[in-house]
Amino acid sequence: MIRLGMIGGGQGAFIGAVHRHAAALDGLYELVAGAFSSNPDTSKASGHLLGLPPERVYTSYQELIQQEKQRPEAERVQVISIVTPNHLHFAPARLALENGFHVMLDKPMTFSLAEAKELEQIAAASGCRFCLTHTYTGYPMVKEARQLVASGKLGTIRKAYVEYPQGWLSTFEEGGANKQASWRTDPARSGVAGAMGDIGTHAFNLLEYVTGLTVTQLCADINTVVPGRQLDDDGAVLLRLSGGASGVLVATQVAAGEENNLRLRVYGEKGGLEWQQADANTLQVKWLDRPTEIRRTGAGYTSSYARHNTRAPAGHPEGYLEAFANLYRNFALSLQADLSGTTAPPEALDYPGIAEGVRGMAFIENVIASGRSDQKWTSFSC
Amino acid sequence: MIRLGMIGGGQGAFIGAVHRHAAALDGLYELVAGAFSSNPDTSKASGHLLGLPPERVYTSYQELIQQEKQRPEAERVQVISIVTPNHLHFAPARLALENGFHVMLDKPMTFSLAEAKELEQIAAASGCRFCLTHTYTGYPMVKEARQLVASGKLGTIRKAYVEYPQGWLSTFEEGGANKQASWRTDPARSGVAGAMGDIGTHAFNLLEYVTGLTVTQLCADINTVVPGRQLDDDGAVLLRLSGGASGVLVATQVAAGEENNLRLRVYGEKGGLEWQQADANTLQVKWLDRPTEIRRTGAGYTSSYARHNTRAPAGHPEGYLEAFANLYRNFALSLQADLSGTTAPPEALDYPGIAEGVRGMAFIENVIASGRSDQKWTSFSC
Amino acid sequence: MIRLGMIGGGQGAFIGAVHRHAAALDGLYELVAGAFSSNPDTSKASGHLLGLPPERVYTSYQELIQQEKQRPEAERVQVISIVTPNHLHFAPARLALENGFHVMLDKPMTFSLAEAKELEQIAAASGCRFCLTHTYTGYPMVKEARQLVASGKLGTIRKAYVEYPQGWLSTFEEGGANKQASWRTDPARSGVAGAMGDIGTHAFNLLEYVTGLTVTQLCADINTVVPGRQLDDDGAVLLRLSGGASGVLVATQVAAGEENNLRLRVYGEKGGLEWQQADANTLQVKWLDRPTEIRRTGAGYTSSYARHNTRAPAGHPEGYLEAFANLYRNFALSLQADLSGTTAPPEALDYPGIAEGVRGMAFIENVIASGRSDQKWTSFSC
Amino acid sequence: MIRLGMIGGGQGAFIGAVHRHAAALDGLYELVAGAFSSNPDTSKASGHLLGLPPERVYTSYQELIQQEKQRPEAERVQVISIVTPNHLHFAPARLALENGFHVMLDKPMTFSLAEAKELEQIAAASGCRFCLTHTYTGYPMVKEARQLVASGKLGTIRKAYVEYPQGWLSTFEEGGANKQASWRTDPARSGVAGAMGDIGTHAFNLLEYVTGLTVTQLCADINTVVPGRQLDDDGAVLLRLSGGASGVLVATQVAAGEENNLRLRVYGEKGGLEWQQADANTLQVKWLDRPTEIRRTGAGYTSSYARHNTRAPAGHPEGYLEAFANLYRNFALSLQADLSGTTAPPEALDYPGIAEGVRGMAFIENVIASGRSDQKWTSFSC
Repeated sequence: MIRLGMIGGGQGAFIGAVHRHAAALDGLYELVAGAFSSNPDTSKASGHLLGLPPERVYTSYQELIQQEKQRPEAERVQVISIVTPNHLHFAPARLALENGFHVMLDKPMTFSLAEAKELEQIAAASGCRFCLTHTYTGYPMVKEARQLVASGKLGTIRKAYVEYPQGWLSTFEEGGANKQASWRTDPARSGVAGAMGDIGTHAFNLLEYVTGLTVTQLCADINTVVPGRQLDDDGAVLLRLSGGASGVLVATQVAAGEENNLRLRVYGEKGGLEWQQADANTLQVKWLDRPTEIRRTGAGYTSSYARHNTRAPAGHPEGYLEAFANLYRNFALSLQADLSGTTAPPEALDYPGIAEGVRGMAFIENVIASGRSDQKWTSFSC
Repeated sequence: MIRLGMIGGGQGAFIGAVHRHAAALDGLYELVAGAFSSNPDTSKASGHLLGLPPERVYTSYQELIQQEKQRPEAERVQVISIVTPNHLHFAPARLALENGFHVMLDKPMTFSLAEAKELEQIAAASGCRFCLTHTYTGYPMVKEARQLVASGKLGTIRKAYVEYPQGWLSTFEEGGANKQASWRTDPARSGVAGAMGDIGTHAFNLLEYVTGLTVTQLCADINTVVPGRQLDDDGAVLLRLSGGASGVLVATQVAAGEENNLRLRVYGEKGGLEWQQADANTLQVKWLDRPTEIRRTGAGYTSSYARHNTRAPAGHPEGYLEAFANLYRNFALSLQADLSGTTAPPEALDYPGIAEGVRGMAFIENVIASGRSDQKWTSFSC
Repeated sequence: MIRLGMIGGGQGAFIGAVHRHAAALDGLYELVAGAFSSNPDTSKASGHLLGLPPERVYTSYQELIQQEKQRPEAERVQVISIVTPNHLHFAPARLALENGFHVMLDKPMTFSLAEAKELEQIAAASGCRFCLTHTYTGYPMVKEARQLVASGKLGTIRKAYVEYPQGWLSTFEEGGANKQASWRTDPARSGVAGAMGDIGTHAFNLLEYVTGLTVTQLCADINTVVPGRQLDDDGAVLLRLSGGASGVLVATQVAAGEENNLRLRVYGEKGGLEWQQADANTLQVKWLDRPTEIRRTGAGYTSSYARHNTRAPAGHPEGYLEAFANLYRNFALSLQADLSGTTAPPEALDYPGIAEGVRGMAFIENVIASGRSDQKWTSFSC
Repeated sequence: MIRLGMIGGGQGAFIGAVHRHAAALDGLYELVAGAFSSNPDTSKASGHLLGLPPERVYTSYQELIQQEKQRPEAERVQVISIVTPNHLHFAPARLALENGFHVMLDKPMTFSLAEAKELEQIAAASGCRFCLTHTYTGYPMVKEARQLVASGKLGTIRKAYVEYPQGWLSTFEEGGANKQASWRTDPARSGVAGAMGDIGTHAFNLLEYVTGLTVTQLCADINTVVPGRQLDDDGAVLLRLSGGASGVLVATQVAAGEENNLRLRVYGEKGGLEWQQADANTLQVKWLDRPTEIRRTGAGYTSSYARHNTRAPAGHPEGYLEAFANLYRNFALSLQADLSGTTAPPEALDYPGIAEGVRGMAFIENVIASGRSDQKWTSFSC
């Protein structure tokens, strides 16, 4: 069992519980410490509910890192999960890495691209492992999609469409008690972007991950639809991709009635693919001249990458927590290999890391800049 | 029975047969004359196959119009369907209107916006009825969608996404014997646009029809993906709409493996809707705070507009030809009302006409201009 | 154009209009005469609305047949469509056949199996063509399904499940003005069965058509769910099929909220297939060891039987009327071949006929007998 | 944390790992002991892999129970999960209960109905809690379905259809190395039924759970389709239910190409519902006279039972492991309430128990008896 510490994720948070479920699912981690809130009482109460001994429930990330570092190596935290709002990503991540702790960090990686680049340097120097929780790449059928593109069977990729419609910010939620809405729409905590940071980065990451291409230019229409809101809650982006492909990215949080409907379509010379989170265990593979194929999680014909990230036989749906757990599991397998002096298989090493985090932050800054520009195409600078 | 004449649509054409099925379905039209091809032999052979008497099979549209005009009123053609390639729309439509024939015209309306505006004047002066075959607005659930938006139940519209992916031009089809591909990719016959004219106009019309809004600005990425092709086969367009809404239009003919997958989503303050042609008898209506509704063709709760355009009870799928036939049927009902000195019900009068044709041509010219421009937003001029 | 006469189908009837649309769609028939109702006024009014000359609108089927027979051969009706309630199928069909008219008859074929067998003799002796409107076998993807089974690619068939849930008789509709409900629940007009005759026969026909197998034994649970109803409105049947396969047939008209959801699944040693009318242009083909295939109407890879029954390219949905029209079209093509002394292609000859009608009536009598029996298995006698 | 011991589930087993994931997900259990195999080496190796101390890895269930009982109360196992093949359910469950351990048992509950009834007595006498892992009732939308029926909004229930098609036993899998196939088709280990025990019991449980009705009579067609197989691999059953409803249950493992496609439909006087595992987060609710509703996991309008069993916001799919984990979680919450002298909320107490186990075993014996009988209806004796 890998010893896990958590920064953030106290009572009332959403993503902290998700991380804990994800870490727990495969029995590879033991939560042994946490600084769950900057409010000492909340942190203590949260730690108590989670069954932690009081002495390992801290009131600040600094305390957690310093105290844990002084514990015997066989006992101290090995991985620190940071699940705070965006403005509190960089500092604890830096401190953790600098003190030799491996880091699991929520997306988007930092508050700014500058921070992201600095963190990249720190992570490289630290020798520690780093994972950024772009959950959706943990789905077996997303792995399958990437492998299919990489196999060349679709031919050269020409088009990629990714869309991420949500509806939960259709009203002025931040005016009330919705804690999630509150920080996500606050420039002081969320950064320069709202929807583009919160979900646009997921869409961007999914597109680059599956196609293996990079965005080279973009042209964005960025909107704040709900009156009074401080950050964007809606956007659409024309994309030019490496290798001559092009595409569209849509991310909106004002599509009233939509849940969390991330969807990707990619088309090459000979065929295309379609995946959507609402039917996450299906990958549609389309062909110019023969029937569409329905590929399914757990089926015998899937790639080693898909199978590696599957727990049950075909027909037993794997959900969001399993996708999230795949990130934790692969991170654990990679660490265990390191610890035992072996090399993890490529399937285990396939989790999002610091490079994806830097590109995500670059996406945020470029897309917001493009949204403000009268110039049509903005070169993707990173 | 309304007496129908046809220009174009000889052997080997696709859309001519569709028009004939659509006109025949409700028993309201009788095909009595045609100039099916500029090749006299093809026209004769086609007319023979269709059971027309030789004297009413003509070798040019001029001949058809002139000869028919000289026939007794009780016998002569009343409506002329023009189903030729784009460059052969304006001249026969003008001549028909100027000679008092009602016109059913295939989209896009003309070869250029200038022609479209001229035709608008001619049509207005003629007193004749005119229908442009934007087929997809003939589906009962598209009618339902428009009525739902108009009812205000979704609140003010904020977002509209329309996409029209096809895959049949993924290869250089025009290099072979594919007659459909040949003229659609030829600037001399198709006009300034390829995919944007052929299917982009349908998507544009569907979006404006359902939302009741108009495009005011656009920003287009227009591509020719297949090497050697002379016109665009792919595009994506950011849209600004009247009333402060915005949207995205995608039209591509290189989405390998896609059939004809027109899809529209519209979101207002309180809810949204989704319709796609592949499941044409379903309209999804989504709400911020209650379950998504599946509205279905033929159900008792549908609007008078949907019911008027439905032939069978719920559960008996109405397809593409029925949607097309709804245009012919509504045109016939409107004409019959005119002839009998009555007023057709609003449901019958709800078919696409000259104004939609002008906007479609404006879309083509604006979108291509935007595609060529370095300026981000192009005002929609019409 | 084949000259068509119609018996039944006057104002207010449902299926008469469907027949007329279906006959009209391909421009192969001209409606020239009719006895639309036993009420002379209704018949006259219906004929007038349909644009028939008064002298060819008759007040009884006998009159229609006798009068038409006296007309010159080049003018007289060639095909008679009989669209009356079940108790009025046999007599007009017999008279028509005996007088040399080809017959298109609504299902179920007759009022009793005895009548059906007698009609079979009469039809054989007449030399006339006969078609029974089991509409659902007219869908291109049902043709595809039958060809797939026949190809042997699924291996020996082991299981077949067919279900036909409707909800429209969930309440005592026959207590009101619903004409459709009224005769369908009346033993004097419908026969020994309600739901089993009305929709059970469709399900039975579909199963035997696609599998190429015959039902050899059955065990039925037949219910009258709605209080006051005189005939069955619900049933489920265990089936044993030739070749050792088995299956289940469900037909119910009290599945509240269901439209007309006919669905068939067939499984062989190596794979299976699934088709449902609500998504009629899709055939799912499932395999033991590879991805499910989505086969679609109009695609280039479909069988000659599917293509022959398709009017538009892939992605232009063909609906219920097109399926119905395929019966009329194939009947017309077969007749035209006869008249020209040639042989119609097997694809055109593939329409339901008298043999299917006899089996349908045998199904009705056997299934009702089984429903009343305490014995588990009833041999299918025919 | 509740201390968990496991009997069975060593390396190579499928369901043991599922139990461990399910127990781990919510962080409510700690696996502290196990007798993972009757083979001592396998048990030791499995325990080692799971990180257990060697002294708590046992070589028999008897040893586990006896040794654990002698440990201090604060340390000893509290719940024992029994995940062995069917013939090894009763003896360890009895011993566990008799020694005061709460039991989580895999379905079907025992080898025979007689054993089940005996276990029911033992459990009642023990005062221990007991859960039978009918996983599918753990899905939030299955909870929602049950609440909907219970609310009376659908009216009196008339029809229930449940089907459970799988394809994985389409060939003679037990002839090879497939451990799962081997015991499931072996009467000595599986009992009197194959498919009916393995998946038929799930379907039966789901139907009774959601409808709140009980099966009173049945009529079964039970088949062994694959040559050489010793137990049934296919069956279809007509059902009569309490309250005058009726239904059909299908369970087959020879539907080639099907995964694990459990589906339930229930119809009352006013509407119906449909749920299928392949789209587990959707509950379709159908109405006689208004649009079908799509109810979704995590939505604000769902019942307290659904919400209680949901971990993430709407649009984050919950899968099979989450459903399974809901059983473990509710069992834990019930136990914790007991231990703290409080009463668990009804939502937590809603997990399948001994009564469901007895009915499942009665189903197996009744359905197999009916399959062998020439009598149509077999009364459901229990």
